[in-house]
Amino acid sequence: MTTLPDASTTTDSTPTRLPAITDEEIFSAHEGGKLSAELTRPLETQRDLSIAYTPGVAKVCTAIKDTPELARTHTWTGRLVAVVSDGSAVLGLGDIGAKASLPVMEGKCALFKRFSGLDAIPIVLDTNDVDEIVETLVRLRPSFGAVNLEDISAPRCFEVEERVKAALDIPVMHDDQHGTAIVVLAALTNALRVVDKSFTSIKVVLSGAGAAGVAVAKILGDAGVENVIVLDSKGIIDSQRSDLTATKEWIASNTNPGGISGGIDTALDGADVFIGVSGGTIDEEHLPQMADDAIIFALSNPNPEIIPDIASKYATVVATGRSDFPNQINNVLAFPGIFRGALDSGATDITDAMKLSAARAIADLVGDDLAPDYIVPGALDARVAPAVADAVESAAHAQGVVR
Amino acid sequence: MTTLPDASTTTDSTPTRLPAITDEEIFSAHEGGKLSAELTRPLETQRDLSIAYTPGVAKVCTAIKDTPELARTHTWTGRLVAVVSDGSAVLGLGDIGAKASLPVMEGKCALFKRFSGLDAIPIVLDTNDVDEIVETLVRLRPSFGAVNLEDISAPRCFEVEERVKAALDIPVMHDDQHGTAIVVLAALTNALRVVDKSFTSIKVVLSGAGAAGVAVAKILGDAGVENVIVLDSKGIIDSQRSDLTATKEWIASNTNPGGISGGIDTALDGADVFIGVSGGTIDEEHLPQMADDAIIFALSNPNPEIIPDIASKYATVVATGRSDFPNQINNVLAFPGIFRGALDSGATDITDAMKLSAARAIADLVGDDLAPDYIVPGALDARVAPAVADAVESAAHAQGVVR
Repeated sequence: MTTLPDASTTTDSTPTRLPAITDEEIFSAHEGGKLSAELTRPLETQRDLSIAYTPGVAKVCTAIKDTPELARTHTWTGRLVAVVSDGSAVLGLGDIGAKASLPVMEGKCALFKRFSGLDAIPIVLDTNDVDEIVETLVRLRPSFGAVNLEDISAPRCFEVEERVKAALDIPVMHDDQHGTAIVVLAALTNALRVVDKSFTSIKVVLSGAGAAGVAVAKILGDAGVENVIVLDSKGIIDSQRSDLTATKEWIASNTNPGGISGGIDTALDGADVFIGVSGGTIDEEHLPQMADDAIIFALSNPNPEIIPDIASKYATVVATGRSDFPNQINNVLAFPGIFRGALDSGATDITDAMKLSAARAIADLVGDDLAPDYIVPGALDARVAPAVADAVESAAHAQGVVR
Repeated sequence: MTTLPDASTTTDSTPTRLPAITDEEIFSAHEGGKLSAELTRPLETQRDLSIAYTPGVAKVCTAIKDTPELARTHTWTGRLVAVVSDGSAVLGLGDIGAKASLPVMEGKCALFKRFSGLDAIPIVLDTNDVDEIVETLVRLRPSFGAVNLEDISAPRCFEVEERVKAALDIPVMHDDQHGTAIVVLAALTNALRVVDKSFTSIKVVLSGAGAAGVAVAKILGDAGVENVIVLDSKGIIDSQRSDLTATKEWIASNTNPGGISGGIDTALDGADVFIGVSGGTIDEEHLPQMADDAIIFALSNPNPEIIPDIASKYATVVATGRSDFPNQINNVLAFPGIFRGALDSGATDITDAMKLSAARAIADLVGDDLAPDYIVPGALDARVAPAVADAVESAAHAQGVVR
């Protein structure tokens, strides 16, 4: 297996370009947690107390009882995202449980605040049971304005998301699926501009049929890609296979139009695009079979399926999930603006059309600066979240999925 | 029924001493909600991101997986209180539902921050079912450091609190019960000093057998009061009655040692103390039967059982729940310090001994300033929460209920 230095501890500057981060620095930065709940207004005098709490608050409660929509404007729920996880598929760490997942969920909440201005709180669930997760979120419903599902393992994540979306009349999105898919689509849109190919003409090989893989396959179809080949750990997913879950059966029916079978070697033959979201690796020997002006997105983190320096020998455009290489495919480009646009518009759902709009907005920001090593804006680009929010808000209104 | 002007809107300065608060002022102060989730550290650079989120955060997750106690020090849960309600007994408004209760829960969270420095978030549950409430909090367990149950109607609140306390190894307290009881005990401690009577010698009449009434009856017993008579809407609770809930059967067995029956008239005959937590009223004609140097706590809000000006004709010490009269019995004197002390000590429970310590700490702060119109510190007295926290922390360590 090809491994890269761990970006969090390496002192080697090649290929990692971040200066060394020590364990001490990391633990110190997490001490006491990364979030706090603060007051939006001073609460200093008896008068302040009488307004914010009893007896004044009773007027606001009564108004919400009479007009429930006022909860959106007169409580924090109008801009509050619950970042919900059961800790079953955390980063590359796997099923570490709810409690151990908390630092990631706090970090995600911090990203929400930093990039979208939304408030977000971590809700971690001490159960892996789909029925119980759905039921719990239904009971908690009035507490939040939106739900970002996070790090829930496949295939449970598909059913959890589908059922929570159906049960709640607020924006719900499993970010590991759709955040990744949206940014992949944005990046691919621009990569195709670089190599002057079109969605309808390309052959895409997608390695990984977990949360991200399935969502990428879906959004590529929605965007007009006709030839997608998806591989799981057993090889190409085709309708001849008898070992498929419900989700993989969907993949078999909706991808691989030529019905090919086999391994990565067969798949990559003449492929224009390789997208890796597998957590595995790919050997250099398979790459020469790809088409001219190939595109490689090796997105597994922290170890890309192929080291970019190798991939570049066979592809015109290369992207990874890491911040220390060009073209970082980072969910942070999508989820803050998506939830901000959804909440601002009063959307009751996050629809496929809203996701496509978000991808387009991210891609469009690159504009005339488009280059093989600049197909998506950087993770810290302050233009992104507002542009995505605007696009999502417009799409929500256009679709009429608002209150 | 004797009614008092509504302190939130009156323009009459007698007896309400707050200047007029308009509806416009109230709604404007609640717009956008009263809480926000903020970052404890800047998240500006790529390096900040790599420390707070991937890849750095993985180290902290792994450490918590190996040593779960690290969640207390390396996430916000070490100082995080969930303010949990089903909206079934909100202020004087009754069962207004989870969504409409949110402004109160946000206000409570704001008080936690203001007085104890703890972080608190509102969790409102769209169910009134005891099993479901308990089950939901068990599933949410790793998300919080402590649970403040709030505005859950009696008698469900007793079972909910008992079962949640048993199920979770973190501090849990239903504030409507114990917050009130603790401050009542503190106030009564000092009122007895004013009139030079002792806990063991007094006869206490307690009107109201809801959440607060039951908890007050219990804590008075714990403090050494031997003669407590409790009334519900049907009169004195005694063991002859056949209409008693499980909780009221407990009251019948543990109060009313003389086994008297009847109404408020019988109860008040020779009583040293009247405590009203009933939401009802009491006629002036019953008061002359009380003992000399009587004590009256008329705590219903916003309308005390007896107007203080009337009560003063028959009692040496009078207290209410309102900020615009002397001797305000306000839960805010108790809950911020109790949860702060419990969380700081790593307590796995909030015990009766911790509650008695809290009451003593509140009472002791009055010191030499003790007077008939100064038996408890004011709600804004900054000395209170730290003193209560210290007392609770000491009690927790003394009892050994810490991790």
